[in-house]
Amino acid sequence: MKIPPDHPRAEVLKIRERLVQGFEDGYVVPQGMIAQGRGEAFDYLIGEKTIPPVREAIKAAAAAFKLAEHPVISVNGNTAALCSEDLVELSEVTGAPLEVNLFHRTEDRVKKIAKVLKEAGADRVLGVDPEHLVRLPNLSSPRAVVDDRGIHRADVVLVPLEDGDRTNALKELGKTVVAIDLNPLSRTARSADITIVDNVVRCVRKITREYERMDQDRARYVLREYDNGRVLARVLDHIRERLRVLSDEAAGAT
Amino acid sequence: MKIPPDHPRAEVLKIRERLVQGFEDGYVVPQGMIAQGRGEAFDYLIGEKTIPPVREAIKAAAAAFKLAEHPVISVNGNTAALCSEDLVELSEVTGAPLEVNLFHRTEDRVKKIAKVLKEAGADRVLGVDPEHLVRLPNLSSPRAVVDDRGIHRADVVLVPLEDGDRTNALKELGKTVVAIDLNPLSRTARSADITIVDNVVRCVRKITREYERMDQDRARYVLREYDNGRVLARVLDHIRERLRVLSDEAAGAT
Repeated sequence: MKIPPDHPRAEVLKIRERLVQGFEDGYVVPQGMIAQGRGEAFDYLIGEKTIPPVREAIKAAAAAFKLAEHPVISVNGNTAALCSEDLVELSEVTGAPLEVNLFHRTEDRVKKIAKVLKEAGADRVLGVDPEHLVRLPNLSSPRAVVDDRGIHRADVVLVPLEDGDRTNALKELGKTVVAIDLNPLSRTARSADITIVDNVVRCVRKITREYERMDQDRARYVLREYDNGRVLARVLDHIRERLRVLSDEAAGAT
Repeated sequence: MKIPPDHPRAEVLKIRERLVQGFEDGYVVPQGMIAQGRGEAFDYLIGEKTIPPVREAIKAAAAAFKLAEHPVISVNGNTAALCSEDLVELSEVTGAPLEVNLFHRTEDRVKKIAKVLKEAGADRVLGVDPEHLVRLPNLSSPRAVVDDRGIHRADVVLVPLEDGDRTNALKELGKTVVAIDLNPLSRTARSADITIVDNVVRCVRKITREYERMDQDRARYVLREYDNGRVLARVLDHIRERLRVLSDEAAGAT
Protein backbone atom coordinates (compact mmCIF):
# COMPACT_ATOMS: atom_id res chain seq x y z
CA MET A 1 0.00 0.00 0.00
CA LYS A 2 1.34 3.45 -0.88
CA ILE A 3 1.04 6.04 1.86
CA PRO A 4 0.67 9.68 0.81
CA PRO A 5 3.46 11.69 2.56
CA ASP A 6 0.95 14.33 3.69
CA HIS A 7 -1.25 11.77 5.47
CA PRO A 8 -1.70 12.93 9.09
CA ARG A 9 -0.66 9.47 10.32
CA ALA A 10 2.06 8.85 7.69
CA GLU A 11 4.80 8.02 10.23
CA VAL A 12 2.61 5.52 12.09
CA LEU A 13 1.49 3.94 8.83
CA LYS A 14 5.08 3.57 7.61
CA ILE A 15 6.09 1.79 10.82
CA ARG A 16 3.02 -0.41 10.52
CA GLU A 17 3.92 -1.36 6.96
CA ARG A 18 7.37 -2.51 8.13
CA LEU A 19 5.67 -4.93 10.46
CA VAL A 20 3.21 -6.12 7.81
CA GLN A 21 6.24 -6.76 5.57
CA GLY A 22 7.91 -8.83 8.33
CA PHE A 23 4.66 -10.70 8.61
CA GLU A 24 4.51 -11.38 4.87
CA ASP A 25 8.14 -12.50 5.02
CA GLY A 26 7.12 -15.08 7.60
CA TYR A 27 8.91 -14.02 10.76
CA VAL A 28 6.34 -11.76 12.46
CA VAL A 29 3.48 -13.82 13.95
CA PRO A 30 -0.22 -12.80 14.05
CA GLN A 31 0.13 -12.22 17.81
CA GLY A 32 2.96 -9.82 16.99
CA MET A 33 0.60 -7.78 14.82
CA ILE A 34 -1.83 -7.53 17.73
CA ALA A 35 1.03 -6.50 20.03
CA GLN A 36 1.94 -3.76 17.54
CA GLY A 37 -1.61 -2.41 17.75
CA ARG A 38 -1.50 -2.35 21.55
CA GLY A 39 1.78 -0.49 21.31
CA GLU A 40 0.33 2.02 18.86
CA ALA A 41 -2.50 2.81 21.25
CA PHE A 42 -0.16 3.45 24.18
CA ASP A 43 2.22 5.40 21.93
CA TYR A 44 -0.68 7.61 20.93
CA LEU A 45 -1.46 8.20 24.60
CA ILE A 46 2.09 9.25 25.45
CA GLY A 47 2.10 11.54 22.38
CA GLU A 48 4.36 9.55 20.02
CA LYS A 49 7.56 11.05 21.37
CA THR A 50 10.18 10.33 24.03
CA ILE A 51 8.85 12.11 27.12
CA PRO A 52 11.09 13.57 29.87
CA PRO A 53 10.75 10.83 32.52
CA VAL A 54 11.57 8.24 29.86
CA ARG A 55 14.83 10.04 29.06
CA GLU A 56 15.87 9.17 32.61
CA ALA A 57 15.07 5.50 32.00
CA ILE A 58 17.09 5.60 28.76
CA LYS A 59 20.08 7.04 30.63
CA ALA A 60 19.74 4.34 33.28
CA ALA A 61 19.65 1.68 30.55
CA ALA A 62 22.84 3.08 29.04
CA ALA A 63 24.42 3.12 32.51
CA ALA A 64 23.43 -0.53 33.14
CA PHE A 65 25.04 -1.51 29.84
CA LYS A 66 28.16 0.53 30.68
CA LEU A 67 28.66 -1.29 33.99
CA ALA A 68 27.62 -4.77 32.79
CA GLU A 69 30.13 -7.57 32.25
CA HIS A 70 27.91 -9.53 29.89
CA PRO A 71 25.08 -7.39 28.55
CA VAL A 72 22.84 -9.02 25.93
CA ILE A 73 20.18 -7.64 23.58
CA SER A 74 17.21 -9.96 23.09
CA VAL A 75 15.52 -9.73 19.69
CA ASN A 76 12.13 -11.03 18.56
CA GLY A 77 10.25 -10.81 15.27
CA ASN A 78 8.67 -7.42 15.88
CA THR A 79 11.89 -5.69 16.91
CA ALA A 80 13.74 -7.21 13.94
CA ALA A 81 11.06 -5.85 11.62
CA LEU A 82 10.89 -2.44 13.26
CA CYS A 83 14.46 -1.43 14.13
CA SER A 84 17.11 -3.97 13.12
CA GLU A 85 19.67 -1.30 12.11
CA ASP A 86 19.33 0.46 15.48
CA LEU A 87 19.74 -2.85 17.34
CA VAL A 88 22.88 -3.69 15.36
CA GLU A 89 24.33 -0.26 16.12
CA LEU A 90 23.59 -0.62 19.85
CA SER A 91 25.25 -4.05 19.78
CA GLU A 92 28.37 -2.73 18.02
CA VAL A 93 28.78 0.31 20.26
CA THR A 94 28.21 -1.53 23.55
CA GLY A 95 29.70 -4.93 22.66
CA ALA A 96 26.46 -6.62 23.78
CA PRO A 97 25.59 -9.50 21.46
CA LEU A 98 22.22 -9.83 19.75
CA GLU A 99 20.28 -12.97 20.64
CA VAL A 100 17.11 -14.22 18.95
CA ASN A 101 14.64 -15.30 21.63
CA LEU A 102 11.05 -16.13 20.67
CA PHE A 103 7.81 -17.02 22.40
CA HIS A 104 6.43 -18.54 19.19
CA ARG A 105 9.72 -20.25 18.40
CA THR A 106 10.28 -22.20 15.20
CA GLU A 107 13.62 -22.88 13.50
CA ASP A 108 12.34 -21.12 10.39
CA ARG A 109 11.52 -17.92 12.28
CA VAL A 110 14.83 -17.97 14.17
CA LYS A 111 16.75 -18.24 10.90
CA LYS A 112 14.77 -15.54 9.17
CA ILE A 113 15.26 -13.10 12.05
CA ALA A 114 19.00 -13.85 12.16
CA LYS A 115 19.09 -13.13 8.42
CA VAL A 116 17.32 -9.79 8.88
CA LEU A 117 19.87 -8.82 11.56
CA LYS A 118 22.80 -9.87 9.37
CA GLU A 119 21.41 -7.90 6.46
CA ALA A 120 21.28 -4.93 8.83
CA GLY A 121 25.01 -5.38 9.51
CA ALA A 122 25.27 -7.84 12.41
CA ASP A 123 28.47 -9.96 12.38
CA ARG A 124 27.14 -12.57 14.75
CA VAL A 125 23.68 -13.52 16.05
CA LEU A 126 23.19 -15.75 19.10
CA GLY A 127 20.24 -18.02 19.82
CA VAL A 128 20.55 -19.86 16.50
CA ASP A 129 23.29 -22.50 16.83
CA PRO A 130 21.80 -25.68 18.44
CA GLU A 131 25.17 -26.54 20.00
CA HIS A 132 24.94 -23.49 22.20
CA LEU A 133 21.27 -23.65 23.15
CA VAL A 134 20.39 -24.41 26.77
CA ARG A 135 17.20 -23.98 28.82
CA LEU A 136 16.48 -21.54 31.60
CA PRO A 137 15.32 -23.71 34.54
CA ASN A 138 12.40 -21.53 35.68
CA LEU A 139 10.41 -20.80 32.52
CA SER A 140 8.15 -23.23 30.66
CA SER A 141 7.64 -21.32 27.40
CA PRO A 142 9.92 -21.61 24.34
CA ARG A 143 11.42 -18.37 25.60
CA ALA A 144 13.41 -20.60 27.99
CA VAL A 145 15.64 -21.67 25.08
CA VAL A 146 18.69 -19.38 25.35
CA ASP A 147 22.29 -19.24 24.18
CA ASP A 148 25.03 -20.24 26.67
CA ARG A 149 27.18 -17.37 25.33
CA GLY A 150 24.28 -14.91 25.61
CA ILE A 151 21.21 -14.64 27.85
CA HIS A 152 22.26 -17.71 29.87
CA ARG A 153 25.36 -16.04 31.28
CA ALA A 154 24.24 -12.40 30.95
CA ASP A 155 24.13 -10.02 33.89
CA VAL A 156 22.08 -7.37 32.05
CA VAL A 157 19.45 -8.21 29.43
CA LEU A 158 17.63 -5.70 27.22
CA VAL A 159 14.17 -7.13 26.49
CA PRO A 160 12.20 -5.03 24.03
CA LEU A 161 8.53 -5.94 23.58
CA GLU A 162 8.50 -8.98 25.84
CA ASP A 163 6.19 -11.00 28.04
CA GLY A 164 5.90 -10.64 31.79
CA ASP A 165 6.74 -14.28 32.59
CA ARG A 166 10.15 -14.01 31.00
CA THR A 167 11.02 -10.78 32.77
CA ASN A 168 10.28 -12.43 36.11
CA ALA A 169 12.26 -15.56 35.23
CA LEU A 170 15.30 -13.48 34.27
CA LYS A 171 15.07 -11.47 37.46
CA GLU A 172 14.82 -14.62 39.59
CA LEU A 173 18.10 -15.73 38.02
CA GLY A 174 19.71 -12.55 39.32
CA LYS A 175 19.87 -10.71 36.02
CA THR A 176 19.14 -7.00 35.62
CA VAL A 177 16.26 -6.57 33.16
CA VAL A 178 15.92 -3.47 31.01
CA ALA A 179 12.51 -3.56 29.33
CA ILE A 180 11.15 -1.49 26.48
CA ASP A 181 7.37 -1.51 26.78
CA LEU A 182 4.87 1.14 25.70
CA ASN A 183 2.36 -0.03 28.32
CA PRO A 184 3.51 1.45 31.65
CA LEU A 185 1.09 -0.83 33.51
CA SER A 186 2.11 -4.18 32.01
CA ARG A 187 3.63 -6.90 34.18
CA THR A 188 6.86 -6.47 32.24
CA ALA A 189 6.91 -2.73 32.86
CA ARG A 190 6.21 -3.19 36.54
CA SER A 191 8.69 -5.97 37.20
CA ALA A 192 11.68 -4.83 35.14
CA ASP A 193 14.58 -3.06 36.86
CA ILE A 194 14.54 -0.31 34.25
CA THR A 195 11.47 0.28 32.08
CA ILE A 196 11.67 2.42 28.96
CA VAL A 197 8.10 3.40 28.06
CA ASP A 198 8.83 4.34 24.47
CA ASN A 199 8.60 3.10 20.91
CA VAL A 200 11.57 0.90 19.90
CA VAL A 201 11.88 2.88 16.68
CA ARG A 202 12.69 5.99 18.75
CA CYS A 203 14.51 4.81 21.86
CA VAL A 204 17.06 2.18 20.83
CA ARG A 205 19.30 4.72 19.10
CA LYS A 206 18.92 7.03 22.11
CA ILE A 207 20.34 4.33 24.40
CA THR A 208 23.33 4.13 22.03
CA ARG A 209 23.88 7.91 22.10
CA GLU A 210 23.72 8.01 25.93
CA TYR A 211 26.12 5.07 26.16
CA GLU A 212 28.65 6.85 23.93
CA ARG A 213 28.78 9.97 26.08
CA MET A 214 28.83 8.22 29.49
CA ASP A 215 31.83 7.07 31.52
CA GLN A 216 31.74 4.51 34.34
CA ASP A 217 31.65 7.08 37.14
CA ARG A 218 28.72 8.82 35.57
CA ALA A 219 27.02 5.44 35.00
CA ARG A 220 27.36 4.55 38.69
CA TYR A 221 25.87 7.91 39.67
CA VAL A 222 22.96 7.54 37.23
CA LEU A 223 22.07 4.06 38.52
CA ARG A 224 22.37 5.09 42.18
CA GLU A 225 19.90 7.94 41.61
CA TYR A 226 17.50 5.96 39.44
CA ASP A 227 14.03 5.01 40.75
CA ASN A 228 11.97 2.99 38.27
CA GLY A 229 8.75 3.27 40.28
CA ARG A 230 9.01 7.05 40.30
CA VAL A 231 9.66 7.13 36.55
CA LEU A 232 6.61 4.94 35.86
CA ALA A 233 4.46 7.14 38.09
CA ARG A 234 5.60 10.21 36.14
CA VAL A 235 4.79 8.48 32.85
CA LEU A 236 1.27 7.78 34.09
CA ASP A 237 0.91 11.41 35.22
CA HIS A 238 1.98 12.48 31.73
CA ILE A 239 -0.64 10.27 30.08
CA ARG A 240 -3.37 11.52 32.41
CA GLU A 241 -2.47 15.14 31.71
CA ARG A 242 -2.40 14.45 27.97
CA LEU A 243 -5.83 12.84 28.14
CA ARG A 244 -7.09 15.97 29.86
CA VAL A 245 -5.70 18.19 27.09
CA LEU A 246 -7.02 15.94 24.32
CA SER A 247 -10.38 15.84 26.02
CA ASP A 248 -10.49 19.64 26.20
CA GLU A 249 -9.46 19.88 22.54
CA ALA A 250 -12.15 17.39 21.57
CA ALA A 251 -14.76 19.34 23.51
CA GLY A 252 -13.61 22.58 21.85
CA ALA A 253 -13.73 21.07 18.37
CA THR A 254 -17.39 20.07 18.57
CA MET B 1 -3.02 -22.52 21.09
CA LYS B 2 -4.81 -23.85 24.16
CA ILE B 3 -5.60 -21.24 26.80
CA PRO B 4 -5.73 -22.41 30.43
CA PRO B 5 -9.14 -21.33 31.86
CA ASP B 6 -7.46 -19.90 34.97
CA HIS B 7 -5.15 -17.61 32.98
CA PRO B 8 -5.66 -14.05 34.28
CA ARG B 9 -6.25 -12.81 30.71
CA ALA B 10 -8.24 -15.87 29.51
CA GLU B 11 -11.18 -13.82 28.19
CA VAL B 12 -8.95 -11.45 26.21
CA LEU B 13 -6.95 -14.38 24.83
CA LYS B 14 -10.10 -16.20 23.72
CA ILE B 15 -11.33 -13.13 21.84
CA ARG B 16 -7.88 -12.75 20.30
CA GLU B 17 -7.91 -16.36 19.12
CA ARG B 18 -11.23 -15.76 17.32
CA LEU B 19 -9.55 -13.02 15.34
CA VAL B 20 -6.46 -15.12 14.61
CA GLN B 21 -8.86 -17.83 13.34
CA GLY B 22 -10.54 -15.29 11.03
CA PHE B 23 -7.10 -14.34 9.85
CA GLU B 24 -6.14 -17.95 9.15
CA ASP B 25 -9.44 -18.38 7.32
CA GLY B 26 -8.42 -15.52 5.05
CA TYR B 27 -10.95 -12.79 5.77
CA VAL B 28 -9.25 -10.81 8.56
CA VAL B 29 -6.36 -8.71 7.15
CA PRO B 30 -3.02 -8.00 8.90
CA GLN B 31 -4.17 -4.42 9.46
CA GLY B 32 -7.22 -5.87 11.23
CA MET B 33 -4.92 -7.69 13.65
CA ILE B 34 -3.18 -4.41 14.44
CA ALA B 35 -6.57 -2.73 14.93
CA GLN B 36 -7.49 -5.49 17.37
CA GLY B 37 -4.38 -4.71 19.41
CA ARG B 38 -5.24 -1.02 19.52
CA GLY B 39 -8.72 -1.95 20.69
CA GLU B 40 -7.34 -4.24 23.39
CA ALA B 41 -5.21 -1.43 24.79
CA PHE B 42 -8.13 0.98 25.01
CA ASP B 43 -10.39 -1.74 26.38
CA TYR B 44 -7.82 -2.35 29.12
CA LEU B 45 -7.90 1.37 29.91
CA ILE B 46 -11.68 1.50 30.24
CA GLY B 47 -11.58 -1.63 32.42
CA GLU B 48 -12.92 -4.26 29.98
CA LYS B 49 -16.54 -3.58 30.83
CA THR B 50 -19.42 -1.40 29.64
CA ILE B 51 -19.07 1.76 31.71
CA PRO B 52 -22.03 3.97 32.75
CA PRO B 53 -21.66 6.81 30.18
CA VAL B 54 -21.45 4.20 27.42
CA ARG B 55 -24.79 2.73 28.52
CA GLU B 56 -26.28 6.09 27.50
CA ALA B 57 -24.69 5.83 24.07
CA ILE B 58 -26.05 2.28 23.70
CA LYS B 59 -29.55 3.51 24.54
CA ALA B 60 -29.19 6.33 22.01
CA ALA B 61 -28.06 3.82 19.37
CA ALA B 62 -31.12 1.68 20.06
CA ALA B 63 -33.29 4.81 19.84
CA ALA B 64 -31.77 5.81 16.50
CA PHE B 65 -32.49 2.33 15.14
CA LYS B 66 -36.05 2.47 16.52
CA LEU B 67 -36.80 5.75 14.70
CA ALA B 68 -34.89 4.97 11.48
CA GLU B 69 -36.64 4.16 8.23
CA HIS B 70 -33.68 2.33 6.70
CA PRO B 71 -31.12 1.39 9.35
CA VAL B 72 -28.17 -0.69 8.16
CA ILE B 73 -25.44 -2.61 10.00
CA SER B 74 -22.04 -2.41 8.32
CA VAL B 75 -19.80 -5.47 8.81
CA ASN B 76 -16.07 -5.89 8.22
CA GLY B 77 -13.69 -8.80 8.74
CA ASN B 78 -12.97 -8.11 12.40
CA THR B 79 -16.61 -7.78 13.45
CA ALA B 80 -17.52 -10.93 11.54
CA ALA B 81 -14.76 -12.81 13.36
CA LEU B 82 -15.60 -11.37 16.77
CA CYS B 83 -19.39 -11.21 17.06
CA SER B 84 -21.25 -12.53 14.00
CA GLU B 85 -24.05 -14.13 16.08
CA ASP B 86 -24.70 -10.87 17.92
CA LEU B 87 -24.80 -8.93 14.65
CA VAL B 88 -27.28 -11.39 13.14
CA GLU B 89 -29.49 -11.10 16.22
CA LEU B 90 -29.40 -7.29 16.09
CA SER B 91 -30.32 -7.45 12.41
CA GLU B 92 -33.24 -9.80 13.03
CA VAL B 93 -34.67 -7.85 15.95
CA THR B 94 -34.38 -4.41 14.33
CA GLY B 95 -34.96 -5.37 10.69
CA ALA B 96 -31.73 -3.59 9.72
CA PRO B 97 -29.88 -5.54 7.01
CA LEU B 98 -26.25 -6.60 7.37
CA GLU B 99 -23.92 -5.19 4.69
CA VAL B 100 -20.31 -6.21 4.08
CA ASN B 101 -18.20 -3.07 3.59
CA LEU B 102 -14.42 -3.32 3.50
CA PHE B 103 -11.44 -1.00 3.32
CA HIS B 104 -9.22 -3.82 2.04
CA ARG B 105 -11.91 -5.10 -0.31
CA THR B 106 -11.47 -8.22 -2.40
CA GLU B 107 -14.24 -10.45 -3.78
CA ASP B 108 -12.78 -13.38 -1.87
CA ARG B 109 -12.95 -11.58 1.47
CA VAL B 110 -16.48 -10.30 0.79
CA LYS B 111 -17.68 -13.84 0.05
CA LYS B 112 -15.98 -15.34 3.09
CA ILE B 113 -17.47 -12.73 5.41
CA ALA B 114 -20.94 -13.24 3.92
CA LYS B 115 -20.49 -16.97 4.53
CA VAL B 116 -19.52 -16.40 8.18
CA LEU B 117 -22.65 -14.27 8.66
CA LYS B 118 -24.88 -16.88 6.99
CA GLU B 119 -23.38 -19.61 9.14
CA ALA B 120 -24.28 -17.45 12.13
CA GLY B 121 -27.90 -17.41 10.95
CA ALA B 122 -28.22 -14.46 8.54
CA ASP B 123 -30.86 -14.93 5.83
CA ARG B 124 -29.49 -12.23 3.60
CA VAL B 125 -26.24 -10.28 3.38
CA LEU B 126 -25.90 -7.06 1.36
CA GLY B 127 -22.73 -5.69 -0.26
CA VAL B 128 -22.07 -8.90 -2.18
CA ASP B 129 -24.24 -8.93 -5.32
CA PRO B 130 -22.47 -6.90 -8.07
CA GLU B 131 -25.83 -5.91 -9.58
CA HIS B 132 -26.62 -3.87 -6.51
CA LEU B 133 -23.22 -2.27 -5.89
CA VAL B 134 -22.90 1.49 -6.39
CA ARG B 135 -20.30 4.04 -5.28
CA LEU B 136 -20.62 6.76 -2.68
CA PRO B 137 -19.62 10.00 -4.49
CA ASN B 138 -17.45 11.51 -1.75
CA LEU B 139 -15.08 8.72 -0.71
CA SER B 140 -12.09 7.43 -2.66
CA SER B 141 -11.37 4.20 -0.76
CA PRO B 142 -12.93 0.81 -1.56
CA ARG B 143 -15.26 1.59 1.34
CA ALA B 144 -17.16 3.70 -1.22
CA VAL B 145 -18.56 0.51 -2.75
CA VAL B 146 -22.00 0.11 -1.17
CA ASP B 147 -25.27 -1.71 -1.77
CA ASP B 148 -28.16 0.31 -3.25
CA ARG B 149 -30.55 -1.56 -0.94
CA GLY B 150 -28.30 -0.91 2.07
CA ILE B 151 -25.84 1.81 3.03
CA HIS B 152 -26.60 3.78 -0.13
CA ARG B 153 -30.19 4.53 0.89
CA ALA B 154 -29.76 4.18 4.66
CA ASP B 155 -30.70 6.97 7.08
CA VAL B 156 -28.90 5.37 10.05
CA VAL B 157 -25.70 3.31 9.71
CA LEU B 158 -24.04 1.33 12.50
CA VAL B 159 -20.30 1.29 11.81
CA PRO B 160 -18.35 -0.89 14.20
CA LEU B 161 -14.55 -0.62 14.04
CA GLU B 162 -14.37 1.81 11.13
CA ASP B 163 -12.13 4.49 9.68
CA GLY B 164 -12.63 8.21 10.15
CA ASP B 165 -12.87 9.07 6.45
CA ARG B 166 -15.90 6.89 5.99
CA THR B 167 -17.71 8.26 8.99
CA ASN B 168 -17.30 11.78 7.61
CA ALA B 169 -18.42 10.74 4.12
CA LEU B 170 -21.58 9.12 5.51
CA LYS B 171 -22.35 12.17 7.60
CA GLU B 172 -21.89 14.50 4.60
CA LEU B 173 -24.52 12.43 2.80
CA GLY B 174 -26.94 13.23 5.62
CA LYS B 175 -26.84 9.86 7.32
CA THR B 176 -26.80 9.38 11.08
CA VAL B 177 -23.66 7.47 12.04
CA VAL B 178 -23.56 5.23 15.10
CA ALA B 179 -19.93 4.19 15.68
CA ILE B 180 -18.50 1.50 17.92
CA ASP B 181 -14.92 2.48 18.68
CA LEU B 182 -12.82 1.71 21.76
CA ASN B 183 -10.67 4.80 21.19
CA PRO B 184 -12.69 7.77 22.48
CA LEU B 185 -10.25 10.17 20.78
CA SER B 186 -10.30 8.72 17.25
CA ARG B 187 -11.62 10.75 14.33
CA THR B 188 -14.48 8.24 14.06
CA ALA B 189 -15.35 8.61 17.73
CA ARG B 190 -15.28 12.39 17.50
CA SER B 191 -17.26 12.76 14.28
CA ALA B 192 -19.96 10.12 14.74
CA ASP B 193 -23.43 11.19 15.91
CA ILE B 194 -23.46 8.47 18.55
CA THR B 195 -20.21 6.86 19.70
CA ILE B 196 -20.23 3.63 21.69
CA VAL B 197 -16.82 3.32 23.36
CA ASP B 198 -17.04 -0.38 24.04
CA ASN B 199 -15.90 -3.76 22.81
CA VAL B 200 -18.16 -5.16 20.04
CA VAL B 201 -18.22 -8.49 21.86
CA ARG B 202 -20.00 -6.79 24.77
CA CYS B 203 -22.10 -4.00 23.32
CA VAL B 204 -23.85 -5.31 20.19
CA ARG B 205 -26.18 -7.55 22.20
CA LYS B 206 -26.83 -4.66 24.58
CA ILE B 207 -28.11 -2.52 21.70
CA THR B 208 -30.49 -5.36 20.85
CA ARG B 209 -31.78 -5.61 24.43
CA GLU B 210 -32.35 -1.84 24.65
CA TYR B 211 -34.14 -1.86 21.28
CA GLU B 212 -36.51 -4.60 22.45
CA ARG B 213 -37.63 -2.70 25.51
CA MET B 214 -37.99 0.75 23.87
CA ASP B 215 -41.05 2.28 22.17
CA GLN B 216 -40.99 5.21 19.73
CA ASP B 217 -41.92 7.83 22.32
CA ARG B 218 -39.14 6.73 24.61
CA ALA B 219 -36.74 6.66 21.63
CA ARG B 220 -37.59 10.29 20.76
CA TYR B 221 -37.01 11.32 24.37
CA VAL B 222 -33.67 9.46 24.57
CA LEU B 223 -32.37 11.07 21.38
CA ARG B 224 -33.52 14.56 22.38
CA GLU B 225 -31.60 14.31 25.66
CA TYR B 226 -28.48 12.69 24.17
CA ASP B 227 -25.22 14.67 23.98
CA ASN B 228 -22.36 12.70 22.39
CA GLY B 229 -19.68 15.23 23.36
CA ARG B 230 -20.70 14.99 27.00
CA VAL B 231 -20.64 11.19 26.88
CA LEU B 232 -17.16 11.17 25.34
CA ALA B 233 -15.91 13.62 27.97
CA ARG B 234 -17.26 11.33 30.71
CA VAL B 235 -15.53 8.34 29.11
CA LEU B 236 -12.22 10.23 29.15
CA ASP B 237 -12.78 11.19 32.80
CA HIS B 238 -13.37 7.51 33.57
CA ILE B 239 -10.09 6.50 31.88
CA ARG B 240 -8.15 9.20 33.70
CA GLU B 241 -9.57 8.13 37.04
CA ARG B 242 -8.81 4.48 36.27
CA LEU B 243 -5.22 5.36 35.37
CA ARG B 244 -4.92 7.08 38.72
CA VAL B 245 -6.19 3.98 40.56
CA LEU B 246 -3.96 1.63 38.52
CA SER B 247 -1.02 3.89 39.14
CA ASP B 248 -1.67 3.87 42.89
CA GLU B 249 -2.03 0.07 42.83
CA ALA B 250 1.24 -0.24 40.93
CA ALA B 251 2.98 2.00 43.43
CA GLY B 252 1.53 -0.03 46.30
CA ALA B 253 2.62 -3.34 44.75
CA THR B 254 6.31 -2.44 44.54
